[in-house]
Amino acid sequence: MTPPTTTTTPLLTQKFGPEITNYFSTSPLNRVSFLRSSNAFLSSALSHGKFLLLRDLEPLAGSESALAFVGYDSVRELIGNPFAGDGEEEVVKGYDSRVFVPTLVFLGLHEEEGGFEWVGEGGKYSGRPYFALDVTVKEKGEVCKKVQEEAVKVEGREFRNVRLDLNLVPGDAAIFAQARSLLDWNNRNQFCSACGARTVSANAGTKRVCPPTDKAFQKSLEDEPFQRPPCISRTGVHNIAFPRTDPTVIMAIINSTGDKLLLGRQRRWPKNFYSTLAGFCEPAESIEDAVRRETWEESGVRVGRVVIHSTQPWPYPANLMMGAIGEALPDGEEIVLKHDPELEDARWVGFAEVKSALEGCTGTPDGGKVGEEGQLRLPPSTAIAHQLLLAVVTGFHLAKL
Amino acid sequence: MTPPTTTTTPLLTQKFGPEITNYFSTSPLNRVSFLRSSNAFLSSALSHGKFLLLRDLEPLAGSESALAFVGYDSVRELIGNPFAGDGEEEVVKGYDSRVFVPTLVFLGLHEEEGGFEWVGEGGKYSGRPYFALDVTVKEKGEVCKKVQEEAVKVEGREFRNVRLDLNLVPGDAAIFAQARSLLDWNNRNQFCSACGARTVSANAGTKRVCPPTDKAFQKSLEDEPFQRPPCISRTGVHNIAFPRTDPTVIMAIINSTGDKLLLGRQRRWPKNFYSTLAGFCEPAESIEDAVRRETWEESGVRVGRVVIHSTQPWPYPANLMMGAIGEALPDGEEIVLKHDPELEDARWVGFAEVKSALEGCTGTPDGGKVGEEGQLRLPPSTAIAHQLLLAVVTGFHLAKL
Repeated sequence: MTPPTTTTTPLLTQKFGPEITNYFSTSPLNRVSFLRSSNAFLSSALSHGKFLLLRDLEPLAGSESALAFVGYDSVRELIGNPFAGDGEEEVVKGYDSRVFVPTLVFLGLHEEEGGFEWVGEGGKYSGRPYFALDVTVKEKGEVCKKVQEEAVKVEGREFRNVRLDLNLVPGDAAIFAQARSLLDWNNRNQFCSACGARTVSANAGTKRVCPPTDKAFQKSLEDEPFQRPPCISRTGVHNIAFPRTDPTVIMAIINSTGDKLLLGRQRRWPKNFYSTLAGFCEPAESIEDAVRRETWEESGVRVGRVVIHSTQPWPYPANLMMGAIGEALPDGEEIVLKHDPELEDARWVGFAEVKSALEGCTGTPDGGKVGEEGQLRLPPSTAIAHQLLLAVVTGFHLAKL
Repeated sequence: MTPPTTTTTPLLTQKFGPEITNYFSTSPLNRVSFLRSSNAFLSSALSHGKFLLLRDLEPLAGSESALAFVGYDSVRELIGNPFAGDGEEEVVKGYDSRVFVPTLVFLGLHEEEGGFEWVGEGGKYSGRPYFALDVTVKEKGEVCKKVQEEAVKVEGREFRNVRLDLNLVPGDAAIFAQARSLLDWNNRNQFCSACGARTVSANAGTKRVCPPTDKAFQKSLEDEPFQRPPCISRTGVHNIAFPRTDPTVIMAIINSTGDKLLLGRQRRWPKNFYSTLAGFCEPAESIEDAVRRETWEESGVRVGRVVIHSTQPWPYPANLMMGAIGEALPDGEEIVLKHDPELEDARWVGFAEVKSALEGCTGTPDGGKVGEEGQLRLPPSTAIAHQLLLAVVTGFHLAKL
């Protein structure tokens, strides 16, 4: 077939259908990652910024479905301007382990909101700057508490555990996911995993550096900087200075005759609740291989062809779910739960039953619709498991003839 | 369309074509990850094991294309039996930071090779056990050196930098990739990133734990264990005890009329060498969104629909390349290099020119075929970039009509 010279529906959509936008993905913010190393940009953005406050990783929310933000004036006493200097080099050079710096992350520019503009090498970048700030009480306790108290004075505002409901509107869900995973990563990486020394935040919260010197051990201001021991994180190609994301696999497995789906359940889930199988990707393993390994380990089913359908960030703490659709080998469909006894049950369920449950009987393991006695229950549409099952029962895997 | 009740060609293959097995993926080893916590299994496997030795992360090889392995007798003096105890709990309880333990990782069972069998809860598991062992001289220097020297006494065997050529046969490439990324991760995580204290290997090299006690600071054997400070890595849901894999995106971008591909080049590459664009996935970002962000940041091109094609582990140090195919928006095809000036050049290249280069003019940035003066050069078939471009020029993105 010769491709048409113009097309209104993109070719990829013609073949694969429209792209699925999973919950927590597709933020309204442009991360402009290349501007994070510019303290001139960050300083300017700071005073025009909207700040998402998180306390113990729970965000300030204005309602069940929306985040709430505060302006620079509300956080100025706590953070000052951490971008006043020349950038990463200066931060590292002036490092003093006695100084507490609250974790502040630049998230991006909300291009649909106005009020800020920056002219850089590549042109003009405009949009409201968004930041995330950790206000959990650690040091500077009084100031942190004051910021927290002021923030919840507006009616309806509170720090909420948004995990239980997943009721945030999609754009806010994506902003929260980015904020939560970056604050959590900064919290858990206060020390260098290569040498055990304290690290310091750089590039607006998206990097942590192990500084070679520490003013805390310098005898006087005129003294030579105190040299910390050498560290392999300061040379060569490595990843430890950068945020971590853990790829996981989650898969809808079709039987070889194309009429049943493999579902499994964990012991702690409510009665009749099932989902797709899932697990962590291992070092030096392709996603396709991880799908086959995890499916076999958890259910004994051997999988052939695997296709990746869509992906979903899951910020608890930093997972990236790779949603796949796989097909069992004709002689590999027997279920064996005892290899890795993670599941209480796994079974093959006909497309019709899956479809009916997706339409009328979904919920999270902790809540949601219950359905009739004995009816199969499946995850809600905010879960990629739901999207994968839906894709299969509506024919994603079938070639147009 | 009603799916056929039986099928010889899997449905997913009918629609998407055969699965691409990328270099470094699809190991011949069954990781049997659920057996790693059984010291009874590991102790038994050890004495039947084949050991891949790595020195400074370079493997013992028997030739340009094959790894070489040694038996337990060759490494017994260095490692003893680290699995003699009861498992993780005992290792953590008996932790003594003065004791040097060489990094040893269980890789899996080579099921096509015989000679070992284990009966577990889920049935019988058989195949030659494979391990990776770090023999870089750190402590126990004399023993390490002796193991190294013995290993290269067999003619043709040497520790090789296998990165430059990628000439290993596929199965060995996958074994090496797993070994390299796990040893590197253990090396770079000798300390806890949450509290800065030393960590210890558990589950045969696939976990690192921050022990709550340390015998090094215990006054006498009868004394109560010395308690280290509390650490958040010992409670709650987190990832820091487990190996890290960094998802990256690599993408063949098609123009909206479906006849050109977007290629870019870095300044340090040889003349005429181009490849697909690529970059790191960010926290809480779907792969599809990362493809759009990285493409725009590096080339200014705005991408709509994105489909994931295949994936490739890349153990330098721990990347997982998510190969995608994306389609530019009709009004987003203008190239702007100055947002994030990583590329020296980016340009739209017609399918015919790409096809011709894939057929006759490929190589790595450091070597390979040169082609005629001025001819486009592209990566070799061991690179996922090559597979993505090949998929597009052979019609992967086109629906069957």
